[in-house]
Amino acid sequence: MSSRRIEAFSDGVFAIAITLLVLELAVPSREEAAEGGLGRALAHEWPAYFAYLVSFMVIGIIWVNHHAMFDKVRLVDRPVLFANLALLLTVSLIPFPTRLLSEYLTAGADSHVAAAVYSATMLAMGLAYAALWLTLTRDVRLLQDDIDPRSSRSALRRFGIGNVFYLATIGLSFLNASVTLAVHAALALYYCFDQLPTIGLRPESRTPPKSAADRPA
Amino acid sequence: MSSRRIEAFSDGVFAIAITLLVLELAVPSREEAAEGGLGRALAHEWPAYFAYLVSFMVIGIIWVNHHAMFDKVRLVDRPVLFANLALLLTVSLIPFPTRLLSEYLTAGADSHVAAAVYSATMLAMGLAYAALWLTLTRDVRLLQDDIDPRSSRSALRRFGIGNVFYLATIGLSFLNASVTLAVHAALALYYCFDQLPTIGLRPESRTPPKSAADRPA
Amino acid sequence: MSSRRIEAFSDGVFAIAITLLVLELAVPSREEAAEGGLGRALAHEWPAYFAYLVSFMVIGIIWVNHHAMFDKVRLVDRPVLFANLALLLTVSLIPFPTRLLSEYLTAGADSHVAAAVYSATMLAMGLAYAALWLTLTRDVRLLQDDIDPRSSRSALRRFGIGNVFYLATIGLSFLNASVTLAVHAALALYYCFDQLPTIGLRPESRTPPKSAADRPA
Amino acid sequence: MSSRRIEAFSDGVFAIAITLLVLELAVPSREEAAEGGLGRALAHEWPAYFAYLVSFMVIGIIWVNHHAMFDKVRLVDRPVLFANLALLLTVSLIPFPTRLLSEYLTAGADSHVAAAVYSATMLAMGLAYAALWLTLTRDVRLLQDDIDPRSSRSALRRFGIGNVFYLATIGLSFLNASVTLAVHAALALYYCFDQLPTIGLRPESRTPPKSAADRPA
Repeated sequence: MSSRRIEAFSDGVFAIAITLLVLELAVPSREEAAEGGLGRALAHEWPAYFAYLVSFMVIGIIWVNHHAMFDKVRLVDRPVLFANLALLLTVSLIPFPTRLLSEYLTAGADSHVAAAVYSATMLAMGLAYAALWLTLTRDVRLLQDDIDPRSSRSALRRFGIGNVFYLATIGLSFLNASVTLAVHAALALYYCFDQLPTIGLRPESRTPPKSAADRPA
Repeated sequence: MSSRRIEAFSDGVFAIAITLLVLELAVPSREEAAEGGLGRALAHEWPAYFAYLVSFMVIGIIWVNHHAMFDKVRLVDRPVLFANLALLLTVSLIPFPTRLLSEYLTAGADSHVAAAVYSATMLAMGLAYAALWLTLTRDVRLLQDDIDPRSSRSALRRFGIGNVFYLATIGLSFLNASVTLAVHAALALYYCFDQLPTIGLRPESRTPPKSAADRPA
Repeated sequence: MSSRRIEAFSDGVFAIAITLLVLELAVPSREEAAEGGLGRALAHEWPAYFAYLVSFMVIGIIWVNHHAMFDKVRLVDRPVLFANLALLLTVSLIPFPTRLLSEYLTAGADSHVAAAVYSATMLAMGLAYAALWLTLTRDVRLLQDDIDPRSSRSALRRFGIGNVFYLATIGLSFLNASVTLAVHAALALYYCFDQLPTIGLRPESRTPPKSAADRPA
Repeated sequence: MSSRRIEAFSDGVFAIAITLLVLELAVPSREEAAEGGLGRALAHEWPAYFAYLVSFMVIGIIWVNHHAMFDKVRLVDRPVLFANLALLLTVSLIPFPTRLLSEYLTAGADSHVAAAVYSATMLAMGLAYAALWLTLTRDVRLLQDDIDPRSSRSALRRFGIGNVFYLATIGLSFLNASVTLAVHAALALYYCFDQLPTIGLRPESRTPPKSAADRPA
């Protein structure tokens, strides 16, 4: 099967999950606004904005990397469909721990539980992403002609390091929930600059390094 | 008409229904978390996670099979559009019985009613799927050249066995709601490995069995 | 501009509006279920199921007709984009009067107000649909080669009759809300069998009537 | 990378954000309807309808302009993906200030805060749009052959004037929230007729002005 429809379906799930995040931002009630004004009531909700922003970045960057991954794919088979579903399960779940963290980021002991659930979801997502890549590279016929599965797998190894960090954030959750969320923002930025798109090419087809104009300023 | 836009619309409905499921996962209120901590309050919601997971699997697998079905389709006409709408009606309904079962899975006598509503929705979905396949195979011009409608229909017969199981789960609902939900998970796994993609081909175009590399490990 | 992306965006809005309807179906609270059981509490919500079903049919059928309309379109310009946005505005609004009618269908005098709001939304949708068709047929270059704008417009006239009925349902709302909703279901069925797809062709390209195999059984 | 999938993902986010707006329209409770009837209770919610309509127009018009922008694009690179994500962040946020303004448009001093948050979101969106255009025109290889980046940038300058107006609406918010919302409606209408689609072409490929039939009546 061609990868067109799996991409369309995945784009749909990514787009919905990223847009549903806005439903987690609560409008303060009239009672909350009455004491101190709406401005202060809104400012009081900063954990929700922080969690919203980090989760938006995370889903956005998974989408970009998913996009880059499927650019290398020629065909998909059933195991790929199911590995992709497993990744979408973790992505579509993200609004739940986001809401949890919005509500409990400043809630003392419970903030640790909320941050750990958030971190565990990220770890599950990172593992599902790695599993999808393994499923795709297990059969060279699924890939575009110019991809070398062996170097792709070594690329994965470097890429998979993120999962060790995700695992570490579960531990960090029990020290400080806000710092944990900030680390997730940093990990998202790290993945912005990952090198997946330029590695994994067969030596002979490796294109020369792109000009400076192609890089972020 | 070509099947491109019907696939895009269906993908949209599948993607939204599968992603809306996450809205059913409720964040425990501060009051609920106060007694015993957030961890225990979250653990207390296991029926919601169980129902979420099963419904995600069900919608995901219907999507995979819908995808495989439309790979065999060349053209669609109005009856196909309406048969497809009937299937989408049942799919888009799934978040409702899922929420019902999340709320009532451990609620004694009411758990049976909730499980029966869930099972009836699955039965309606299975019947709508079979009706769509019948509508597609009633006219050979709608199918790709290499599909044999006669063997496709016998394939449907084997495929339709699932509906007998769905019917049985309605009865089972009145014995035990949790077991019923587990059976739905098992049925979803059964459909993961269904043979629709390889049957229904005309004898001369039947491709040789795929190599082990194509199968899930 | 080609019509590809306007179709993709419209498909998205249709798919989301039709799937959001399920959020209107409320799970009875434990208190409601306590008196008489969950079965009775669910049965008590029949107006919500009725309104859900009719609105699903309405959106589904507008989508089918939108699909058939854009099959005749070759290019779109800015006025078409905005006429299409006006139609999408009315479509994406439908979940609101549906929720209103679910809540107030059996509420005496208020049921008339709710039904009138529902009917007015349908009228706005019908008018927006006609306006979009007028915008598309005002310039022959926007249409596929084999479409005759003159006969297309006479087709619209016949098609536009539905709007007179929608207007009448506003009056009917003040007599009986349930009957009004049933009439909307009947109008949706009427549009299922509308003849837009086969009219509007230039005489020389008019295809012979399709075989019985193409019609619903 | 080709721009196909970035357009599909963006269309998804636009379609979902524009359709989620309807969830902000609240059905009056039975208690609210009891005093004065449902009609009056609905009329009382006019700020929600007003905010809904303006936000729908805004998102619809950004979509049209996004569509026109990507019609000029041949390839996208990573910086474009991230600039586009920043725009989608602001677009997917719009339902939140819309809900805020629906609730607080007539709330005295708090109405100013709500209008300022709404205006600030629009300013962020306008800046993100300009940044995306700058990112696209920084490398001529990303654009279709007939686009002249230099004149495109001067076009942007004229286009960017809207951001000055958005900045001014933040100030206006502290005078009158309803007038501010009306100005946003006017700005949306201004962007309806913006000239981006016809500017930016290289002199030799500039097409002659379109016939009257192409303009809105």
